[in-house]
Amino acid sequence: MRHTWGVSARSPFDHVALLTDYGLDDEFVGVMKSVIADIAPHARITDIGHNVRAYDVRGGSLMLARAIQYVPRGVVVAVVDPGVATKRRMIAVEVAGGEGVLVGPDNGLLVPAAAMVGGVERAVVLSNTGLHLPAPGATFAGRDIFAPVAAHLCNGVTFDELGDIVDADILMPGLVGLPQVGDSEILAEVTWVDVYGNCQLNLGPEDVEILAGASRRLTVVVDGVERSAAMVSAFDDVADGAIGLVIDSYGMLAIAKRQDSAARDVGLANGDQVVLRAPQPGGKGTTTRVSLRKNAPDGPRQ
Amino acid sequence: MRHTWGVSARSPFDHVALLTDYGLDDEFVGVMKSVIADIAPHARITDIGHNVRAYDVRGGSLMLARAIQYVPRGVVVAVVDPGVATKRRMIAVEVAGGEGVLVGPDNGLLVPAAAMVGGVERAVVLSNTGLHLPAPGATFAGRDIFAPVAAHLCNGVTFDELGDIVDADILMPGLVGLPQVGDSEILAEVTWVDVYGNCQLNLGPEDVEILAGASRRLTVVVDGVERSAAMVSAFDDVADGAIGLVIDSYGMLAIAKRQDSAARDVGLANGDQVVLRAPQPGGKGTTTRVSLRKNAPDGPRQ
Amino acid sequence: MRHTWGVSARSPFDHVALLTDYGLDDEFVGVMKSVIADIAPHARITDIGHNVRAYDVRGGSLMLARAIQYVPRGVVVAVVDPGVATKRRMIAVEVAGGEGVLVGPDNGLLVPAAAMVGGVERAVVLSNTGLHLPAPGATFAGRDIFAPVAAHLCNGVTFDELGDIVDADILMPGLVGLPQVGDSEILAEVTWVDVYGNCQLNLGPEDVEILAGASRRLTVVVDGVERSAAMVSAFDDVADGAIGLVIDSYGMLAIAKRQDSAARDVGLANGDQVVLRAPQPGGKGTTTRVSLRKNAPDGPRQ
Repeated sequence: MRHTWGVSARSPFDHVALLTDYGLDDEFVGVMKSVIADIAPHARITDIGHNVRAYDVRGGSLMLARAIQYVPRGVVVAVVDPGVATKRRMIAVEVAGGEGVLVGPDNGLLVPAAAMVGGVERAVVLSNTGLHLPAPGATFAGRDIFAPVAAHLCNGVTFDELGDIVDADILMPGLVGLPQVGDSEILAEVTWVDVYGNCQLNLGPEDVEILAGASRRLTVVVDGVERSAAMVSAFDDVADGAIGLVIDSYGMLAIAKRQDSAARDVGLANGDQVVLRAPQPGGKGTTTRVSLRKNAPDGPRQ
Repeated sequence: MRHTWGVSARSPFDHVALLTDYGLDDEFVGVMKSVIADIAPHARITDIGHNVRAYDVRGGSLMLARAIQYVPRGVVVAVVDPGVATKRRMIAVEVAGGEGVLVGPDNGLLVPAAAMVGGVERAVVLSNTGLHLPAPGATFAGRDIFAPVAAHLCNGVTFDELGDIVDADILMPGLVGLPQVGDSEILAEVTWVDVYGNCQLNLGPEDVEILAGASRRLTVVVDGVERSAAMVSAFDDVADGAIGLVIDSYGMLAIAKRQDSAARDVGLANGDQVVLRAPQPGGKGTTTRVSLRKNAPDGPRQ
Repeated sequence: MRHTWGVSARSPFDHVALLTDYGLDDEFVGVMKSVIADIAPHARITDIGHNVRAYDVRGGSLMLARAIQYVPRGVVVAVVDPGVATKRRMIAVEVAGGEGVLVGPDNGLLVPAAAMVGGVERAVVLSNTGLHLPAPGATFAGRDIFAPVAAHLCNGVTFDELGDIVDADILMPGLVGLPQVGDSEILAEVTWVDVYGNCQLNLGPEDVEILAGASRRLTVVVDGVERSAAMVSAFDDVADGAIGLVIDSYGMLAIAKRQDSAARDVGLANGDQVVLRAPQPGGKGTTTRVSLRKNAPDGPRQ
């Protein structure tokens, strides 16, 4: 999803990307797609993924943030929603100079993805019920609200017709932790364990440059156990049996093993904490003070 | 799928919805979709779901019946078929004034969905083998019969070209149980345990109005264990730790817990029986006689 | 995918089929599809399957070979790749008189499917990086190379623009075993256990004609245990509780049970060996010498 400068007359959207925690065992996703196809037959639908762990807003928001830059111009519907349509607002946010609209619950799910493509430009509460489907019982927000709203956007309904425009600053923020970068130690967090067991951290390679130094190695501490890891440029460059720190395909640091699951070997899951230390030439590393990230006063990293 | 009255000249179908028990581990679904895309490139395909439990005709028929009202005008192919193409007929049924054709085995899979959109109007046995693919070995009905038939319907082949028209009354009926509604007790059945563990019953809220009375509570009996459940209008209104009776998103009663699996907590699975009783102000409820549903002489509820 | 003789002016491709071992838990597949939809909005995408066992090149190549004949004219992208983009080449192969292009790693994944539709006609290494996406870190070949290459092919980029044409004879061959057919015994291999537990063998019915003879029965030996199996023409014709040899829907012999898993009952998995012997009228079969397949000197069967 990219910003297209200077487009004066926009064509209506014709792409809807979907991300949910509905899974594929029930008909929820199929019904959402049916609703979109029924209202906007010209709209193409791409499934980002529907196996977000149930109610895992943080995991879903991270998946959406990773994917968003590859998603075509159009609408994105994301639904991971422990609150089930009662106590929080349903919103849409406009991004990328109007080239994209993200639709979903106001629970932090959409904001990290919006930040990846330049931030929220406008926000609207989906209060125009004339664009929703009537529910036979409890509201199924994906089917009754988000899917028809996405379809109507593809049919030319404008952003401000969706409901009441609200201040983007009062949206629920994302739930992604920030690393704490100290002089001799970094406290990081696993943002994603992929299907191969690679453990992505909330760190880019630039965050560990000084710590790793010329050795290009770091000590990885998980649950008090220290392991030495080389920084390498490809998953296949990790030495057999060892763990490595790879700049993964999203440009983030990941703890990885070659053709094996680092998550299982090291014992890591989504959200777990990892300490990275400069390699200690003589003996085991000693615990050092973790100071705040150097640029923390400037606010969180987007 | 809705009836469009007074359409004199119809455009050909351009939508095929799919529901199977093939799962997504083998290439079965992909091959069916390839066959449709090859014969009818203009036809859009929407997956309702492919993870119906293997051979579970009842579960598949209920999923299709829930989804059908949201499916666009066009063809629906459903395959859940323990008989594997030998001993039962393959059929198509026309519904909604010709706005929809359901294609699948004659084993009760299609009939409940057809009933949801007004009933079977015409039925045909798929005996025109000129519309099928030749099989290299055993017939794979989804690939060799149902997919090409659906594609040919999208290309303008008419319903009666599919084969021999048969009496709709001799189709295998659906397998959905009916509740037994007595004066002080209702014997219901779990029609669906969704991925969140909510247990849909074969009851609408109107079926329990008298029993619940002003208290808006019912006693739920499963395997001899009695639990009190409040009737509430949203999943989030169920009290923490308690079970509730929610009018779910399809308008049916469901036993639910808030952000937890009622199925696991109460011990319920698809097809299990549940007794609902009027709440007993003093002590535990006593077993009461279950009489037949009051309107039973008028025949089963559609 | 069929050869269309005498087509002088071809229209650009508008179909991309996908097969990977990425699974559906992460956003990998969704991102690949997003990239294709972004570059070539007119291209239709059909998922063959994404649940190939991780790194199982053999299983993936067999799934692709089974599906290929049903896939529409166009591009096929297949990714099962233990090597992860470092030490082996990424290629495209042209098949069926230019009606199809298979894109993927040069590790044996594509060759069996190409053989099913007439063999590799031209091969190219994907060295034209101008057609790839820049990677923020480690290359994710599906997203950064294969998906954009497929999309560009749909936009009219020609086969030889993809990179350096190479000799098709130096491609990595497929990993599918050949049966060893002797006078009184055949040593076969399980090529595929489908979701129902049917065990496809690397044998067509013609391979066992002589051995089975007029009795239409064979002795199946697995792990030293002998079972008698009738050759039948449909899964439903297998006797209750027995195992049978069915000509499956791809025209291959499969060990099957009626509405039950032969794999579980007999104890078979992908790649396992099975011995087939002529039925012994008197008592248990005795072990006989396994000679080489009669036509082995003529080279492997395609």
